[in-house]
Amino acid sequence: MTAHARLSLNQATVKYAPLAEALEVTASAGIASIGLWREPVAEVGLKTAARLVRESGLRVSSLCRGGFFTMPEGPERRVSIAENSRAIEETAVLASAGAAGSSAVLVLVAGGIRSGSTDLIGSRDLVRSALEELAPVAESAGVTLAIEALHPMYVSDRAVVSTLGQALDLAADFDPAVVGVVVDTFHVWWDPAVAASIDRAGREGRIASYQVCDWATPLPADVLLARHYPGDGVIDFGVLTAAVEATDYAGDIEVELFNEQIWADAPATVAGRVVESFDSVVAPHLR
Amino acid sequence: MTAHARLSLNQATVKYAPLAEALEVTASAGIASIGLWREPVAEVGLKTAARLVRESGLRVSSLCRGGFFTMPEGPERRVSIAENSRAIEETAVLASAGAAGSSAVLVLVAGGIRSGSTDLIGSRDLVRSALEELAPVAESAGVTLAIEALHPMYVSDRAVVSTLGQALDLAADFDPAVVGVVVDTFHVWWDPAVAASIDRAGREGRIASYQVCDWATPLPADVLLARHYPGDGVIDFGVLTAAVEATDYAGDIEVELFNEQIWADAPATVAGRVVESFDSVVAPHLR
Repeated sequence: MTAHARLSLNQATVKYAPLAEALEVTASAGIASIGLWREPVAEVGLKTAARLVRESGLRVSSLCRGGFFTMPEGPERRVSIAENSRAIEETAVLASAGAAGSSAVLVLVAGGIRSGSTDLIGSRDLVRSALEELAPVAESAGVTLAIEALHPMYVSDRAVVSTLGQALDLAADFDPAVVGVVVDTFHVWWDPAVAASIDRAGREGRIASYQVCDWATPLPADVLLARHYPGDGVIDFGVLTAAVEATDYAGDIEVELFNEQIWADAPATVAGRVVESFDSVVAPHLR
Repeated sequence: MTAHARLSLNQATVKYAPLAEALEVTASAGIASIGLWREPVAEVGLKTAARLVRESGLRVSSLCRGGFFTMPEGPERRVSIAENSRAIEETAVLASAGAAGSSAVLVLVAGGIRSGSTDLIGSRDLVRSALEELAPVAESAGVTLAIEALHPMYVSDRAVVSTLGQALDLAADFDPAVVGVVVDTFHVWWDPAVAASIDRAGREGRIASYQVCDWATPLPADVLLARHYPGDGVIDFGVLTAAVEATDYAGDIEVELFNEQIWADAPATVAGRVVESFDSVVAPHLR
């Protein structure tokens, strides 16, 4: 089997596979790149994870994830900042272990409004100050922090950064090599300003990751698990992919699916469907 | 019982009450205004509905709802346009039957992407062309069409208009007396641009309705029924209400709740809780 050269399988798509199996399944499906998650890396330990990645011959496209730093100053925030600093180091180690063309990109999910608060605007300020604290750490590690705007339905409990434009505004004060953004079709496709924001992200050199997955309704009871194979929903991957291709982003494109039905399938079956769906609805729009 | 003078009970909040009961419950709770829905009006017929409204002594703050015109030209679209024209006439009749200070405002929900399509951008163009067709009908009836931006989680199956800014862009080509917008806290609170968009809506004279209800997570299995009493969630009604108050909008403020638990309560109980929650978290921010 071979897959499109720019396809990367985000490990969350085969959530229940341990790291070694996820790497094996990815390579067997002919996919040349993988987006890793911290939890399965931690299961085997960073050193072993790096060895497994090196042996796999795969590129590493990103590490998921840091962030969740919308709490005010205090012990809980210190824990979060320390955890993010560790995630930055892990990103550097794993990207070094990956094949040539790997990306030292740490995906950041901002976090929601803290319990008992209604202060959305203040929560966003706390994201900015966390970036100010973490940017020097990332810079010295050679890692790009990639702010991911999440769909507005997650704003209260998951991510107070809801649009690509807002992510770019947050990134604006930093070196693009240190703070970039994720363009995830599921999160941004609805936005009337999405094409303009992708264009801006390109001009500002901020696109650190492009992730594709589809949106379909009705949403499942747990809206976190609403992500579908490209082509199984209503997103126009032509419009969005063309917009990203019009920038100079030429990196890996991850398929990241959170979906109970998909997770219930055998990882090899899932990897095969990822390859097919990518070939069918994303690849035709690539240069 | 008395309620804040600007409070209006949107009839959907007491969904299972027939029109006569909804009017009675509203008046008994000391609320001076009601937002009507077409279905309970149709149950008794427009003529009877107008008489009941007149006898109630209540103001009418809006009629819900028109819209759902994202299908391409053809018989189905003609049915939708005709239905919207009827809704415009009903709005005029019911507002005339209401007490002084009633508003001839028809709330419009755009509609989603038609089945089998991925053409979000084209669907939005179909909203614009429907407005062009309906604006003269509304103008001659003295009715304001109020475009309601719905939360982006409804974009595919409910409303391709997702932000207040987008609603204002759609309205821009029309007379503000004919095409305005709804500001609904539930739908717009997450938007990083919401304060700027409310300010713009004020400057452009477009605010035709202000609706309040709260957002809480986890979302229910049916995300259409996620609306809570003001104060029961995470929305900062101070920030949003102050932004609306800084415009010259001085009309009624509707509480519109879709929520199975609330609907299961007795309508009079619900109306009482609406009064209390409005007094507690919205009224303090009014002039």
